Amino acid sequence: MSFRQNHLLGIEPLAPDEITAILDLADDYVTLNRSEAKDADALKGLTQVNMFFENSTRTQSSFEIAGKRLGAHVMNMAMEASSIKKGETLIDTALTINAMHPDLLVVRHPHSGAADLLSQKVNCAVLNAGDGRHEHPTQALLDALTIRRRKGRLHRLTVAICGDIAHSRVARSNMMLLHKMENRVRLIGPPTLVPSAFGELGCEVYEDMQEGLQGADVVMMLRLQKERMDGGFIPSEREYYHRYGLDEAKLACAAEDAIVMHPGPMNRGVEIDGTIADDINRSVIQDQVEMGVAVRMAAMELLARNLKARRTEAA
Amino acid sequence: MSFRQNHLLGIEPLAPDEITAILDLADDYVTLNRSEAKDADALKGLTQVNMFFENSTRTQSSFEIAGKRLGAHVMNMAMEASSIKKGETLIDTALTINAMHPDLLVVRHPHSGAADLLSQKVNCAVLNAGDGRHEHPTQALLDALTIRRRKGRLHRLTVAICGDIAHSRVARSNMMLLHKMENRVRLIGPPTLVPSAFGELGCEVYEDMQEGLQGADVVMMLRLQKERMDGGFIPSEREYYHRYGLDEAKLACAAEDAIVMHPGPMNRGVEIDGTIADDINRSVIQDQVEMGVAVRMAAMELLARNLKARRTEAA
Amino acid sequence: MSFRQNHLLGIEPLAPDEITAILDLADDYVTLNRSEAKDADALKGLTQVNMFFENSTRTQSSFEIAGKRLGAHVMNMAMEASSIKKGETLIDTALTINAMHPDLLVVRHPHSGAADLLSQKVNCAVLNAGDGRHEHPTQALLDALTIRRRKGRLHRLTVAICGDIAHSRVARSNMMLLHKMENRVRLIGPPTLVPSAFGELGCEVYEDMQEGLQGADVVMMLRLQKERMDGGFIPSEREYYHRYGLDEAKLACAAEDAIVMHPGPMNRGVEIDGTIADDINRSVIQDQVEMGVAVRMAAMELLARNLKARRTEAA
Repeated sequence: MSFRQNHLLGIEPLAPDEITAILDLADDYVTLNRSEAKDADALKGLTQVNMFFENSTRTQSSFEIAGKRLGAHVMNMAMEASSIKKGETLIDTALTINAMHPDLLVVRHPHSGAADLLSQKVNCAVLNAGDGRHEHPTQALLDALTIRRRKGRLHRLTVAICGDIAHSRVARSNMMLLHKMENRVRLIGPPTLVPSAFGELGCEVYEDMQEGLQGADVVMMLRLQKERMDGGFIPSEREYYHRYGLDEAKLACAAEDAIVMHPGPMNRGVEIDGTIADDINRSVIQDQVEMGVAVRMAAMELLARNLKARRTEAA
Repeated sequence: MSFRQNHLLGIEPLAPDEITAILDLADDYVTLNRSEAKDADALKGLTQVNMFFENSTRTQSSFEIAGKRLGAHVMNMAMEASSIKKGETLIDTALTINAMHPDLLVVRHPHSGAADLLSQKVNCAVLNAGDGRHEHPTQALLDALTIRRRKGRLHRLTVAICGDIAHSRVARSNMMLLHKMENRVRLIGPPTLVPSAFGELGCEVYEDMQEGLQGADVVMMLRLQKERMDGGFIPSEREYYHRYGLDEAKLACAAEDAIVMHPGPMNRGVEIDGTIADDINRSVIQDQVEMGVAVRMAAMELLARNLKARRTEAA
Repeated sequence: MSFRQNHLLGIEPLAPDEITAILDLADDYVTLNRSEAKDADALKGLTQVNMFFENSTRTQSSFEIAGKRLGAHVMNMAMEASSIKKGETLIDTALTINAMHPDLLVVRHPHSGAADLLSQKVNCAVLNAGDGRHEHPTQALLDALTIRRRKGRLHRLTVAICGDIAHSRVARSNMMLLHKMENRVRLIGPPTLVPSAFGELGCEVYEDMQEGLQGADVVMMLRLQKERMDGGFIPSEREYYHRYGLDEAKLACAAEDAIVMHPGPMNRGVEIDGTIADDINRSVIQDQVEMGVAVRMAAMELLARNLKARRTEAA
C-alpha cells in the first residue's frame, strides 16, 4: 500500500504517491456521500476524538460527519482557551486522552507544531486540522481533489494563490502540495501579506493581481485573517477589495476556463465578489466543502489501516 | 401515502390527513420509546444536522434523541450569534452544510422565515424547530398528539390558549393546527399580548381569563417571553400571575375534566401555580415532552421517505 | 448477581461484594479497550444522558466514550449555570429528561445531594459524577481498580490521601471505599483543609506530610480546589508546595514500592513535582484515566441489568 504515514501532520512529509492514494480513495467516498445510505464501516469499533483549541464549526463538522459515516465513535472535546496557556498543559491533556485509548485524534491548535508535539506523546494516529500558521493538510488535499476532478489532472497547472499568504496555513499546505505534484504556483498580494521569502519556496510572487492572474488555471482566494494580524499593516476592507478582491475585471485576466476557489468562510465584497462566488460554472467553493468530507474519510481510513498494522506487528 | 411534504416548515401548508399521518406514526414511536430497547432503523445511513441559532436545550435534545433512536448520524452544530447578522451568511452556512450531503436539517432561528429560506437552498428535508414569531410545527404536533391521546379525539374540542399570544410561535402553530382539525380556539390575555387581529383568524378573544376558560376542554398556558418583548408593555410577574396565572380559582371555570398544558420551561408562580403543574391527573406537561420525541421521530421518518422517493425519481 | 443497586449515588451504600463486582467486570473492559475494535453491546438500544451542571471535560469524555463503546445512544446536555439557581428548576429539568425515556442519567452538580434528589424523580438509573463536596463514586472506583491492579490486592494497604481533604468529594468517596475494603487511611494536610472531624471517620490525621507518608503503599494527591474555597485560608501556591507538594524528599518517606496517584487535572509544581508525575514506575496517573473508562462501562452495564430486571418485574 502506498500510504506509509502514521500521522497526517502536514503535506510536507507526504510523497506524491501518498497524496494520490488519499485522493483516489476519496473519490470513492464522494460517490458514497452522494448515495442514499451513507454508511461504511472502515472505522467501526474505533474511537475518534476531535480536540479543537480554536473554534471552527466547518472543519469540525466535516471531520465529525466523516467519522460517523465510517462507523467510528466520534467525540468532540470542547477545549477551553484557558487550558492552552502552557505547553505542559497541552501534553497533560494529550496524555489524558491517550489513556482513554482513542484511535484517531483530530487536533486544531493556535500554535504551530502543536499537532506534531501531540503525535509524539500518544499511541494513536494524529490528524492536524490546522496548527497556527504552519499547516492545514486536509484543506490542501480537498483543494487538490477539487482541482483534479474539475480540471481532469493535478499537474502542469498554473495556480494563483491570492491574498493574505503570510498568515495562512492553507496557503502553505497548498503551496507544498501543488509543488510536489508539479504545478506552477503564483502568490499574489501586498508585500506585507506575501513575505518575499516565499519566493525562495519556488513560487512566483506578484504584487499586481491582474498581472499575477494572467493565464491562471486556478484562482485560489484566501480569507483575510484579521484575527491573526498582530500589529503591522491592516488594510481597509474597501482598499483591499479594490486591489485584491476578485471581481470580473481581474478574473478576466485568468484562463477562460479558470476555476475559482475559497476555503471559506468568505467575506463577500472583501476577498471576492458575491456574484462570482455564486457562479457554479466558475466557482467550486461548494465542491471544496463536499470534497472535504470525502478527503477526511479517506485520510482517516488510511491512517487507521496503518495503525492496525503497527499494532498487529507490536503484538 | 398521505404525507406529501418535502419539508416541515409550519403547520400552515399541512392538510388534515397529513397531520393525522404524523400523529398515527408517532403513536407507534410512543410504544417503542416506552420499551426496553429503543432502536429503530428508519433513518439508518442518513445524516441529521441540528442547526440551532437560538439556544434550546429541550428542543434540541428531543430532536437529537429522536434521530439517534432511528439510527441517523446526528450532528449538532453550535451556531454563534455572530454568524447570524447578515441574511447572506445564513445562506452561505446553509450551502456549506448542504455540500456535506445531510438528509435532514433541523433549524431554529430567531428570524421568521429562516427555515423557509434555507429550504430553498438545500437538497435535503428541512424541519423548522422554531423561527422567530412565525411557526414551531413540531410543538403543535406534539400538543395535538397529547390532546388526542388524553381526550380520545382531536376535533370538536374547546381549547383555550392563554398568555403571551403576540410573541408566541407556539400559539400560532397551535391555532392553525386546531382550526384545521375543527376545534374551537379561544385566545386569552391582555390586549397588549393578544393583538385584536388574531380575532380575524377565527379565534374568540378574551381579556378576562375566567370568562375565557368557561367550559374549556384544554387549557394551554404559554411561557411569558420577556426576551422577545422589544419595548412596549412588560407586565410585572406578580400582576401577571394575579390576572393570567393559572390557579385553582381560574381553572375551576374550565370543564371538570380539562387538561392543562405548557410548552416549558415553566415559570412557576408566574404563568402557572406549581401545584397544578405537578398534578398528573390534570397536568399533561410531562406527556407533552414524551410526545415530542415520538412526533419528531414520525416527522423525520415521513420526510425521509419522501426525500428518498424524490431522489429515486431524479435518478 | 452481587450488584444490587438501582443507582450509583455514592460509595456509602455499596457493600464490599458490590464494589468487587464492579471492579471484576471493569477488568474485562480494560482488555476490550486495549483491543483493536472497542465495540460491545451491553447498552445497545439504551439512551444515556450526560447532564453536567459543572464543566468537566475529562469526566464527561470518560462517560461518553464508555457509553458509546457499549452501544448506547449518548447525549450530552449543556446545562447553563442560570438553570441551576432554584432547586425546583433542577427537578423540572429532571422530569423533562425523564419524559424522554432515558435509561442512564449521568449527573454532575455543584450541590451535595443533587444526584440523590434526581434519582427520586426519574424512572432510570442515575450515576453521580460528582455532587458538591459529597461523593464522586466512579472516581473512587477507578482509583480502587488502579490500586488493585498495581498492588495485586485492595485490602490491608496503607493509603495516604494528601492535600485539600475538606473540599474534596474525591477524598470522601475514597475514604469510604478504602475503609469498606479494610485498608488503613491516613489524611494529610493543614488543619484548615483537614477538619478534625474526619478523624472520627476512622482515619488517622497528620499535619506533617513526612510523618504521614511513613510506610504508605499508596500516595494519593488531591487537586487544590481554589474555586471551592469560599472565604477562609487560601494558601499561597509556593508555601503549599513547600509543605504539602509531593517532591522526592517527601516521597522517600513512603514505602519503597509506593505508587503515586492524582485525580487530575494536576497543578504541576503546586501539588506535585512534574518529574514524579511523569515517572511511570511510580506514578499511575495515566492508569487512573484508563481505568476510569473501564469502571464507568462496568457500572453502567450493571445498572442497566438491574434496570431491565426491575422493568421486567413491573411489566
